[in-house]
Amino acid sequence: MASIFTKIINGEIPCYKIAEDDNNFAFLDINPNVKGHTLCVPKREVDKILDLDEASYMSLMAFSRTVGKAVEKAMECDRVGMMVVGLEVPHVHVHLIPLNSMKDATFLNKEALTEEEFETIATKIKSNLKDS
Amino acid sequence: MASIFTKIINGEIPCYKIAEDDNNFAFLDINPNVKGHTLCVPKREVDKILDLDEASYMSLMAFSRTVGKAVEKAMECDRVGMMVVGLEVPHVHVHLIPLNSMKDATFLNKEALTEEEFETIATKIKSNLKDS
Repeated sequence: MASIFTKIINGEIPCYKIAEDDNNFAFLDINPNVKGHTLCVPKREVDKILDLDEASYMSLMAFSRTVGKAVEKAMECDRVGMMVVGLEVPHVHVHLIPLNSMKDATFLNKEALTEEEFETIATKIKSNLKDS
Repeated sequence: MASIFTKIINGEIPCYKIAEDDNNFAFLDINPNVKGHTLCVPKREVDKILDLDEASYMSLMAFSRTVGKAVEKAMECDRVGMMVVGLEVPHVHVHLIPLNSMKDATFLNKEALTEEEFETIATKIKSNLKDS
């Protein structure tokens, strides 16, 4: 069965899309730790990051760097954390999380946002992506 | 002033070393979330991961993949998480963490190990590195 991320990539489930290239897709985490929390996902559905072949892994990491720089410019934060956990959805995803404190990195605190807030954030990150 | 990681890389502070290449250095985290928690660090001292130039970033990520695969083989875990937070030591470091539950990824639970346990773990990871 297709993962929830594959359904998002295929447009079967809506998302706040940030960027896309041949191999990868980025969108806002719908249950964010903090504002601007973004996920970068390889289009090919693989469960564990270290099971990606080297080229796919390097492609995802380069893509995450580009998107991460835009997130860092767009959001007020000390820095953007990059975290791969993957215990919940069996489809590799790099969390890009604007961090101001360790609490933002623990996945224990979540921030509820309105549709309008998600849209504003996505627009801001995308405009920083164009400038970079 | 040199960061604690630069002092480790230069041999001024002892560590349980795992691997080294021209640009990067890996050693066991002395205050691990769980057994096998390893840090991969670029030799050049840069605070934030997204401030690394592209070549240094890609080199660190390739190195972390190689070391991560050895950690995954050596330790009993569901998978190895890769996490860059960086709020505490101002020198880029990729956490490689053998994960079995979300708790292992939160940095809130720490495991105290003896010197002998650290040495046994380091030896096991290094032997898996040779085989890979």
